[in-house]
Amino acid sequence: MATVKLMTDDEAALITAVQEVFDDIRQTRKSDFINNFWRGLANDPANLKRVWEGLKSVMVTEGAIDPLVREMIYIAVSTANSCAYCIQSHTAAARSRGMTEAQHGELLAVISLAAQTNHLALAMQIPPDPEFEVE
Amino acid sequence: MATVKLMTDDEAALITAVQEVFDDIRQTRKSDFINNFWRGLANDPANLKRVWEGLKSVMVTEGAIDPLVREMIYIAVSTANSCAYCIQSHTAAARSRGMTEAQHGELLAVISLAAQTNHLALAMQIPPDPEFEVE
Amino acid sequence: MATVKLMTDDEAALITAVQEVFDDIRQTRKSDFINNFWRGLANDPANLKRVWEGLKSVMVTEGAIDPLVREMIYIAVSTANSCAYCIQSHTAAARSRGMTEAQHGELLAVISLAAQTNHLALAMQIPPDPEFEVE
Amino acid sequence: MATVKLMTDDEAALITAVQEVFDDIRQTRKSDFINNFWRGLANDPANLKRVWEGLKSVMVTEGAIDPLVREMIYIAVSTANSCAYCIQSHTAAARSRGMTEAQHGELLAVISLAAQTNHLALAMQIPPDPEFEVE
Amino acid sequence: MATVKLMTDDEAALITAVQEVFDDIRQTRKSDFINNFWRGLANDPANLKRVWEGLKSVMVTEGAIDPLVREMIYIAVSTANSCAYCIQSHTAAARSRGMTEAQHGELLAVISLAAQTNHLALAMQIPPDPEFEVE
Amino acid sequence: MATVKLMTDDEAALITAVQEVFDDIRQTRKSDFINNFWRGLANDPANLKRVWEGLKSVMVTEGAIDPLVREMIYIAVSTANSCAYCIQSHTAAARSRGMTEAQHGELLAVISLAAQTNHLALAMQIPPDPEFEVE
Repeated sequence: MATVKLMTDDEAALITAVQEVFDDIRQTRKSDFINNFWRGLANDPANLKRVWEGLKSVMVTEGAIDPLVREMIYIAVSTANSCAYCIQSHTAAARSRGMTEAQHGELLAVISLAAQTNHLALAMQIPPDPEFEVE
Repeated sequence: MATVKLMTDDEAALITAVQEVFDDIRQTRKSDFINNFWRGLANDPANLKRVWEGLKSVMVTEGAIDPLVREMIYIAVSTANSCAYCIQSHTAAARSRGMTEAQHGELLAVISLAAQTNHLALAMQIPPDPEFEVE
Repeated sequence: MATVKLMTDDEAALITAVQEVFDDIRQTRKSDFINNFWRGLANDPANLKRVWEGLKSVMVTEGAIDPLVREMIYIAVSTANSCAYCIQSHTAAARSRGMTEAQHGELLAVISLAAQTNHLALAMQIPPDPEFEVE
Repeated sequence: MATVKLMTDDEAALITAVQEVFDDIRQTRKSDFINNFWRGLANDPANLKRVWEGLKSVMVTEGAIDPLVREMIYIAVSTANSCAYCIQSHTAAARSRGMTEAQHGELLAVISLAAQTNHLALAMQIPPDPEFEVE
Repeated sequence: MATVKLMTDDEAALITAVQEVFDDIRQTRKSDFINNFWRGLANDPANLKRVWEGLKSVMVTEGAIDPLVREMIYIAVSTANSCAYCIQSHTAAARSRGMTEAQHGELLAVISLAAQTNHLALAMQIPPDPEFEVE
Repeated sequence: MATVKLMTDDEAALITAVQEVFDDIRQTRKSDFINNFWRGLANDPANLKRVWEGLKSVMVTEGAIDPLVREMIYIAVSTANSCAYCIQSHTAAARSRGMTEAQHGELLAVISLAAQTNHLALAMQIPPDPEFEVE
């Protein structure tokens, strides 16, 4: 059960700062759908705006990393942080950006391999090799 | 300080099962360098072989995800799992596969944005939207 | 689904060591309500007593940190450890101690900002500044 | 060892977008000291600006939660996320905002109690009590 | 909700690589039951085989650690990684290997004590004692 | 660098509550060595006593789980929580209780396998099988 109320469109319409962000989400995504994350965050309009602006500039704009790859990185972090909502929403987002079943399978293989070796390196407390140094 | 001894080449030469994996690492990577992770893992030759075989098939072979992207996913997981050794070794690996400074910057922006929204979604205990369902 | 049975009041009444802790919880909190956490922990009366005594002395007694602030710190840790039950129970506890919506919003903003910079500092492996040293 | 270069003042002076953020950090904190975190982040001026703006608005401005309390929440999250740099920098920040040894001791007691009960609630998979529901 | 489809026996029968692993799971465990984890992983037959082979050799074969103890270690890691499915499946597995209620209680006490002191050692950034060195 | 001072024997001798715990640690362990963890925790004598009493009753007393196994569970949790100090101190403790190299190798294999499947189950959001239910 949520620890905050999920703001409905009717409630959002009464708060200009929320309505503006909801409008921008819809326009940016070219879709009327606003997922529960933003409806929860809307209880704090300042943070809603800050997080949405951050997400828009990191995930939506042109950049050096392909947008689908960004979604896969997002899934990787969300898995390691054990965030069920985020795993589900960003897997859906990755699929809508064209992630194939083969890519999803490989993504899971890489994530779980990394977790396996993370725990090994930690348990052995392996010292970094000097070769890794940034020159 | 490591919780295991790091096996030298001289010690590895005395254990056939270790020597075979070290040879394969060198051949696969076309480099004489064997990093400390494998030297620590060599204390358990069965696990050394299992982990190396897993890593080789997930990270090195042809696949649906670009090898550089796999390294970026690896860094993402290692960061969320707080594995210093893994972050350093796979950042070096990503650079050697051609990761630019711009890509590294964006990778960090995506990782940290994901962590930010992971914690928000968790703290608010946002219920998944039915729209995320796999059809 | 729980991995332990949740002890009912009738079952607790049959085990003196459990009944004594349940009585103390009710008396300390001035409420008849005993939440599921204690009903699960009651399967191990020694640990029930140890954890309750620890919680009582850390969270309930007079101290240098305001009780509401202690609940907010609790929520912060529970979020980063991805414990849904703990997030929900301590958000309810914080509200019952007077946490306002504005405070809840700021709490979430601080938690998620910290997570964002945690992941950045980890991914960059930033070395500590000597200025942080405890004198 | 860091995975990025730490930007010196001389290097920062050559990049207007970085110099502006460094100037604002110094002015906001009324101190000439710029810690390594920002010197690493400066490799990506856009992210530097975004993270600094976020941090400034969450941690520095007037709000419903006392600034020292915000630092204690920051330490709590950083501990659970195992970020050594963040623990050290924000413990120093909390001390500079007046955190006493007694408060630090209590902070640690709350953080570690929360971790203890987080793991218990997770291992028992305790179902949330309906009483926690937000009305 | 799952991010992958759970493969039924009828669907598995059509993919030789999946059917072979399912057969081996049933034969190894001497049970017709195949739990959802493998049905999800079956979407990537190569990873299904790799993970099952790894699990079989680590958890099922003769070794230096008692099989019940291996299950308890599994529960410990799954708890700290906040994996609900894994906690539930391996607690069931530990019970089927003979874990008593007293052992389960002690397991939880050790897990939660470790979490408590982990967070304390991290928050205090305690330097390792030279006495811990592997000779 | 530590965020607290590490209390010397001379300083401990001036605080009765600390001296009593240090005496009990030495008597219980039949050794004069007091590791840094307790010297850091000594800054808060109440928490020092609480944590030591908890650790003594969970790790030292007779119980249903072998003391060496308890140390291995401790290492598992500490690895997943990424606590370098705890991994190092409890690996040393496990060795002093007789952990062989073969057992250490298997422990690491189980820990890393669990991490691998934890991340898979999380990324796939596998729903628990009804068969896991506690009867």
